[in-house]
Amino acid sequence: MEDYHKPDQATVQALRNIAHRLRINSIRATTAAGSGHPTSCCSVAEIMSVLFFHTMKYRPDDPKNPNNDRFVLSKGHAAPALYSMWTETGFLKESDLVNMCQVDSALEGHPTPKQQFVDVATGSLGQGLGVACGMAYTGKYFDKASLLSVLCCLCCECSYRVFCLLGDGEMSEGAVWEAMAFASYYQLDNLVAILDINRLGQSEPAPLQHHVEKYQRRCEAFGWHAIIVDGHSVEELCKALTQPRHQPTAIIAKTIKGKGIPVAEDKMGWHAKVLPKDMAESVIRDLQSRILNSNKRLYPATPTEDAPPVSLRNARMPSAPSYKLGEKVATRKAYGMALAKLGRYNERVVAMDVDTKNFTFSEIFKNEHPNRFVECYSAEQNMVSVATGCAARERNIVFASGLATFFTRAYDQLRMAAISESNINLCGSHCGLSIGEDGPAHMGLEDLAIFRALPTATIFYPSDGVSTEKAVELAANTKGVCYIRTGRPESNIIYNSNEDFHVGQAKVVCQSKDDQVTVVGAGVTLHEALAAAEQLKKERIYIRVIDPFTIKPLDAKTIMDHARSTRGRILTVEDHYYEGGLGEAVCSAVVNESGFVLQRLAVPHVPRSGKMSELLKIYGIDRESIVQAVRKMISSSANAK
Amino acid sequence: MEDYHKPDQATVQALRNIAHRLRINSIRATTAAGSGHPTSCCSVAEIMSVLFFHTMKYRPDDPKNPNNDRFVLSKGHAAPALYSMWTETGFLKESDLVNMCQVDSALEGHPTPKQQFVDVATGSLGQGLGVACGMAYTGKYFDKASLLSVLCCLCCECSYRVFCLLGDGEMSEGAVWEAMAFASYYQLDNLVAILDINRLGQSEPAPLQHHVEKYQRRCEAFGWHAIIVDGHSVEELCKALTQPRHQPTAIIAKTIKGKGIPVAEDKMGWHAKVLPKDMAESVIRDLQSRILNSNKRLYPATPTEDAPPVSLRNARMPSAPSYKLGEKVATRKAYGMALAKLGRYNERVVAMDVDTKNFTFSEIFKNEHPNRFVECYSAEQNMVSVATGCAARERNIVFASGLATFFTRAYDQLRMAAISESNINLCGSHCGLSIGEDGPAHMGLEDLAIFRALPTATIFYPSDGVSTEKAVELAANTKGVCYIRTGRPESNIIYNSNEDFHVGQAKVVCQSKDDQVTVVGAGVTLHEALAAAEQLKKERIYIRVIDPFTIKPLDAKTIMDHARSTRGRILTVEDHYYEGGLGEAVCSAVVNESGFVLQRLAVPHVPRSGKMSELLKIYGIDRESIVQAVRKMISSSANAK
Repeated sequence: MEDYHKPDQATVQALRNIAHRLRINSIRATTAAGSGHPTSCCSVAEIMSVLFFHTMKYRPDDPKNPNNDRFVLSKGHAAPALYSMWTETGFLKESDLVNMCQVDSALEGHPTPKQQFVDVATGSLGQGLGVACGMAYTGKYFDKASLLSVLCCLCCECSYRVFCLLGDGEMSEGAVWEAMAFASYYQLDNLVAILDINRLGQSEPAPLQHHVEKYQRRCEAFGWHAIIVDGHSVEELCKALTQPRHQPTAIIAKTIKGKGIPVAEDKMGWHAKVLPKDMAESVIRDLQSRILNSNKRLYPATPTEDAPPVSLRNARMPSAPSYKLGEKVATRKAYGMALAKLGRYNERVVAMDVDTKNFTFSEIFKNEHPNRFVECYSAEQNMVSVATGCAARERNIVFASGLATFFTRAYDQLRMAAISESNINLCGSHCGLSIGEDGPAHMGLEDLAIFRALPTATIFYPSDGVSTEKAVELAANTKGVCYIRTGRPESNIIYNSNEDFHVGQAKVVCQSKDDQVTVVGAGVTLHEALAAAEQLKKERIYIRVIDPFTIKPLDAKTIMDHARSTRGRILTVEDHYYEGGLGEAVCSAVVNESGFVLQRLAVPHVPRSGKMSELLKIYGIDRESIVQAVRKMISSSANAK
Repeated sequence: MEDYHKPDQATVQALRNIAHRLRINSIRATTAAGSGHPTSCCSVAEIMSVLFFHTMKYRPDDPKNPNNDRFVLSKGHAAPALYSMWTETGFLKESDLVNMCQVDSALEGHPTPKQQFVDVATGSLGQGLGVACGMAYTGKYFDKASLLSVLCCLCCECSYRVFCLLGDGEMSEGAVWEAMAFASYYQLDNLVAILDINRLGQSEPAPLQHHVEKYQRRCEAFGWHAIIVDGHSVEELCKALTQPRHQPTAIIAKTIKGKGIPVAEDKMGWHAKVLPKDMAESVIRDLQSRILNSNKRLYPATPTEDAPPVSLRNARMPSAPSYKLGEKVATRKAYGMALAKLGRYNERVVAMDVDTKNFTFSEIFKNEHPNRFVECYSAEQNMVSVATGCAARERNIVFASGLATFFTRAYDQLRMAAISESNINLCGSHCGLSIGEDGPAHMGLEDLAIFRALPTATIFYPSDGVSTEKAVELAANTKGVCYIRTGRPESNIIYNSNEDFHVGQAKVVCQSKDDQVTVVGAGVTLHEALAAAEQLKKERIYIRVIDPFTIKPLDAKTIMDHARSTRGRILTVEDHYYEGGLGEAVCSAVVNESGFVLQRLAVPHVPRSGKMSELLKIYGIDRESIVQAVRKMISSSANAK
């Protein structure tokens, strides 16, 4: 505590005044909007005031400055409190606040990146701390490494710190505890979580009520330094936030929900309720009377300028893939090799995994670039949040891998990454039935459906080593959430290494002038389609085989152009359930075009354990099923004549 | 410890022998299958032996008996260990084990309900404890309540206990800590978790390695009684598992991964690796030599027969809904009222929520049936697991509610519920843009996509109070995962209270012989379509309006039959993203039928905050957008003539 200088009385009063104004602004904004959570803002007033005007170092005119301390409002429903702080700094105009939630205002009901000072959207509870972990990890390890190499100095880490404000309601979310474990494991001493323990949830008191010592015990057990404070005491907050840190620190702030609104203080029934206009006015008058004259105008401290410059532009492979036609490699392995290669040419390419790196082959990247690999252990939600945090402020090109099906575990985090306009790349290996013996729990059969329903997603589904390497390179340079679907089994290299790939551009893998059906497959089903083509050739039936390469966007034009040469017949084959995958994507593309007949092969119900070849056959997506479907399409249109 | 009777030496030796045979069987099965996790089985050998032949009370010939103690293998990759135990009990034949993972064997790579002794499928880490919580909650509260009412006895709870075996890798999953918090909050003293701390994960040591005291601290901080034992000591396990309980108990078992396989013991690189045949044989010989003669044959203790009889059949509403045409009610409110009503007629109807009961209106059920409502707090993953646990062995008809979009948080749990063949009912309120000001974080715009991609799902999307009440009743009587999508805004009652509803049967809400376009909408967009119909009438343009009622299965026949009378023109309008929802479902249905033109209105990208009416307009799914789309469809086909 030796370096703690107590703030003088004028500073204390100025901080209190800021807190009062936060309450006033939050009440005004929510009453004007007819929506919002004023009582959830009132409990954090002093916390926010101290953070923004005593603790944090940042440039108020440049919220995205890389040297700034980061702030994540995990309890996103206190958005007006955040907006109020940026009004205090001068970045927002006070008059903007009363337009909150209006359709023409950039101040939304929960924080979104429409505002420069919002790095990631929040509002889905329990996600902020994982994102903050990604930012803190970047500050402590990635930016440090860059500093060492760029500036050759010996400073131990970048100066910027990361602050995350959580509500007590969201402490019930497991994702918070994944992040807690992560932060202590990696000794993120540049990370501070402030827990707003205001006792009341949305429809009930939070389970631990005001038992701050229970929160402290849990945080300590998870390896954090945990300090209990009165969350409305500016002095206690200033002191706690100044303590030296050798671990991540949790400030457990006991607060009153609705503090400053007499009728609502510590009362149930006031969550997400705005004050009626007359009540708002009377409360505001009372709060205004508490704002005492203080000569002191507070300014946030200026950050140290030691965040290294970063360029995410130069993420290109200078050489073509080195695979030879006919060689065999699993696309999951090609992913690891491509990523390691990409990492050679841009030092901000970073990778992470959920203790599956020997399955996804991200271990190849780890072996070559150990300092740029983050092991996230079995915590898929947290990995996606950490990825989002690492990618924030364009600090890193992030690739996060795991088994395809387990991205279902993190779908809410992925959804929020899309709302956050985050640029992250995910790779899901072991897709589909083709994993075989491990059975349905491990088969990714809905991953295309969930990624397709993310508005910012690009979905790569490469079918050989060459296209996988291209997918990795393209993903690194594509905005939004990129997903690369890879498979477990080895498969033939089918592309020349100088083949050019683009997002939204399909490849015709096999064609002749006599083709009668256009078959669209990807991954294992593309190879089954090629085998079916060989088999059908013996019967003098020829098929065109198309590799879509990306499922979203789908190259509908190429598929339709070629299908027109095969009398409009299209057969899709996918190692995925019928709903939401390749087949429905093609369906959506052709539904209003005349002259097409679309047949679809996909997995119809929950599958079982077995050998890959047996399963492909049982569920009707193997070469023989394709052969039969092709024959049937031809004969039924012959009958129709 | 007063009631602890140390097992005699013959019993100890017999338990050790069972553990040795477990190792032998697990090695044999995995080597024969060429797949599986023998080293993960070897670490739990003594734990399983003691649980199955010293601790647990159950009928080995009747694994589903309601009086049996429950066992959940959360670390599902140790499936061969489980199969080995049921071989010891005589339920399985030893000769079946070597067919494990074969396509004609009911012994899958991870446990699935193909086996009677598996209540829920496992294999996605970290989900077992939440399911066990649901079972234990049922034993302690729901079955107790039934006992009290049926038998009028004063026993405090049903006798059966619930045991859950977890691995240390999965302790990184937040879902485990959600369950930990739930169990202590509800004082589930009939629940025992055994943590197999074998130090090694899949590609790395687990983050806490062998620091069992850290696990203990975390469990204690989360309100559990936690005991550290040597997981290979039959005596220590017997003693720990006999301790009296006033809290949920965690047995933290320090074990050696691969114990009994000298080359693999405590070594990295052996996860999910099977032993080559010759090595397997030599290890098995060694293990056989450790099986010492014991005259004692062990039998599991017989359970107390005090689980009350339960009938889930009688879940019918004896009276029609009481709404009047033209009244207004939000479908979310109609859900709460219907559920409370259903609860009157079947005492095993239970409900749960994630601290949103005042938004979803499940609070109406809670107010009427407080003893059958489970508050799960902000822990969506755990709620779905608890629901699955409560529904297991057909003990309860479970309804779990929350905001529609936050079911994305639990999608992996829902996926596993489908694999588990679980019968659970979910209700997601606040779907779509129509929530307005809270912004995109709270808008369910991908829920139809994710539920459609669940093979066992039925999706209800009721559009008024009457159909909501019918949906609740139908869901209670429909197998699989049922999802009911409800909305925030109030809307008109459009159905007579005696209207009959069926799964997969659409309703024609508005029609005339002059209809030119068939419009399919649901929820808010159905009401917008009806308003559009009124508006278009003024221009003498008539449209047919169809309410699909269920999105899965979709009543394609009704839609197509009616669309044929409107010159094949179909317009779908949905408060959901374009991908995977109503529009794509209709698309899939009509793609190969000739004579249809399908236009779709849906939300094209991440939306923003604003008033509902403004948002519906901006994103093109309001009445005016429908009017324009209808006009365009008519004029473009007129032009085409």
